[in-house]
Amino acid sequence: MNDIFLRACARQPVPRTPVWYMRQAGRYQKEYRAIRERHGILEICRSPELTAEVTRLPVERLGVDAAILFSDIMVPLVALGADVRIEEGVGPVVGEPPDPSRLGPLEPDRDVGYVLEAVSMLVRELDVPLIGFAGAPFTMASYLIEGGPSRSFVRTKQVMLEDPGRWDELMGWLTQVALASLRAQVLAGAHAVQLFDSWAGALGPDDYALHVLQYSRRIFEGLADLGVPRIHFGVGTGGLLELMRDAGADVIGLDWRVPLDAAWDRLGAGVAVQGNLDPAALLGPWEGVEEKTLRILTQAEGRMGHVFNLGHGVLPETDPDALRRLTDLVHERTGVGEEAPT
Amino acid sequence: MNDIFLRACARQPVPRTPVWYMRQAGRYQKEYRAIRERHGILEICRSPELTAEVTRLPVERLGVDAAILFSDIMVPLVALGADVRIEEGVGPVVGEPPDPSRLGPLEPDRDVGYVLEAVSMLVRELDVPLIGFAGAPFTMASYLIEGGPSRSFVRTKQVMLEDPGRWDELMGWLTQVALASLRAQVLAGAHAVQLFDSWAGALGPDDYALHVLQYSRRIFEGLADLGVPRIHFGVGTGGLLELMRDAGADVIGLDWRVPLDAAWDRLGAGVAVQGNLDPAALLGPWEGVEEKTLRILTQAEGRMGHVFNLGHGVLPETDPDALRRLTDLVHERTGVGEEAPT
Repeated sequence: MNDIFLRACARQPVPRTPVWYMRQAGRYQKEYRAIRERHGILEICRSPELTAEVTRLPVERLGVDAAILFSDIMVPLVALGADVRIEEGVGPVVGEPPDPSRLGPLEPDRDVGYVLEAVSMLVRELDVPLIGFAGAPFTMASYLIEGGPSRSFVRTKQVMLEDPGRWDELMGWLTQVALASLRAQVLAGAHAVQLFDSWAGALGPDDYALHVLQYSRRIFEGLADLGVPRIHFGVGTGGLLELMRDAGADVIGLDWRVPLDAAWDRLGAGVAVQGNLDPAALLGPWEGVEEKTLRILTQAEGRMGHVFNLGHGVLPETDPDALRRLTDLVHERTGVGEEAPT
Repeated sequence: MNDIFLRACARQPVPRTPVWYMRQAGRYQKEYRAIRERHGILEICRSPELTAEVTRLPVERLGVDAAILFSDIMVPLVALGADVRIEEGVGPVVGEPPDPSRLGPLEPDRDVGYVLEAVSMLVRELDVPLIGFAGAPFTMASYLIEGGPSRSFVRTKQVMLEDPGRWDELMGWLTQVALASLRAQVLAGAHAVQLFDSWAGALGPDDYALHVLQYSRRIFEGLADLGVPRIHFGVGTGGLLELMRDAGADVIGLDWRVPLDAAWDRLGAGVAVQGNLDPAALLGPWEGVEEKTLRILTQAEGRMGHVFNLGHGVLPETDPDALRRLTDLVHERTGVGEEAPT
């Protein structure tokens, strides 16, 4: 297996910088859109075969060094009976807010066996590592409280500040769900995990430290014995990076709003970093993609532990050829001794 | 006139930290909602009397040290004939994208005389300084290109990266509009100006430096001869603060995602800072508001040039009494020698 992704996560020497892309399986691919014409998102997530097929789609096409399980952060909650729909292009839409005490804890084998089966299939077939993932408690809570995607997260913050009992019950439940799901994915064979706290950047550092950090830390600590790299990611989290590291992550995912070198200086050499090209760059001319990418590679130079990625998911408007060219660019510019002899 | 706001902007000694709130005139006030039942937003903006009435509403009620003209960043474009509606609770909604060459430059006396008349009325009546404002070119361009509020700003970035000619034409036009509007407001009597680049935080520092900074700089430089404090504000701009300062601002507005002291360290003593309580804090218990506010005041201690504000606009759900209490808290905790003798 090509394990340079895992070695980079462990801050070990690598022959070239590993590359993968958040949402590397998605609407920008005509093959994905063809599958989606016949199957709903949750239908794909519930079928090990379809999940494996969609997960594999980008791996060879893009030349990436890791696969990420195709799923949705809401899948475990839906499996527990939460009233959630996934709308393509919108995201999760929540009806009745779920009652943690009624829905109860996640038992992965019982509730999301199809996910674990997909993981098992994939790790047998893939020749790159498979990344499992879960939604972090804050981000999950925000969907449940707001009823869907939000810009201001006002209702979420209101519960967080006004109703500590309800907040702790909800966050504790979501912590159990995420941890159980991630542990099961790793036990089924996933080689690494990413905790998506996509919207944590809505909080200032004090609120994050007081109301969120403890739950995410419980997840990272609960995974420690498994020995797999633990990635922690959110957008707009420039003010939270040290805290997100302190939650116990091995790799911090950066968005494009922070220069990679300055962010890594703040985080220290004890963690790896992942990122951080603005996915919108790929909608512009190639010269701009190349310039931005080379700047990122220069910023990472001289340190071990850089995983190249976008700063957020691949946009649906992205040309797959541009993504492939980007993978090759990173590999070529960082590769040593990997070329065929001339 | 109570000029402590202006003195703080100039980093001069003040007897207590000045306070004002973005969107201090707005839906959280029952008086405002009553006026809005009878008048549309643009109708208020076009009537000097209504504008003045709404602008004055919060000044005494909240005990703030500055008034901000009630208007909308879209008013000059609407006056030029752009196809824009303002929807309360949503924001600007743009129909046909405006053609800069057809709509032409803003001539404030001809196009927005009612705004200037409101400014003149207000500066005669108020005993605190009046802040004029405009939308910055990037934020305005994003509304025009996206057709309304956005979360990803993908289309805006696409034009920015792919079509430099169209971008420069649009940004140049919006620069002229903002500069002409701000100059006219100051000449009509406004004591300070704020440039709202609310959504600039969608960009990484390189894109901001390459595609946005020059336009905002043209605005700040074009105001320099007027000698009024120039405030530069956006949300999620933690990665852009030095660049936003370099655009020529005297005061940098901070949101709650950056600790005020760390941000000010980065900016240096040569600028004043404004901020930065999370407006959502006011939806929680008073103890939390107090704790966060005292932390901000401590972070500002020992430096001249702090204007207390929220990190974004007052939320519609806010209790006016909590805002008043907040003003008083800041005044009391920072006041020296202003109390009645005991």
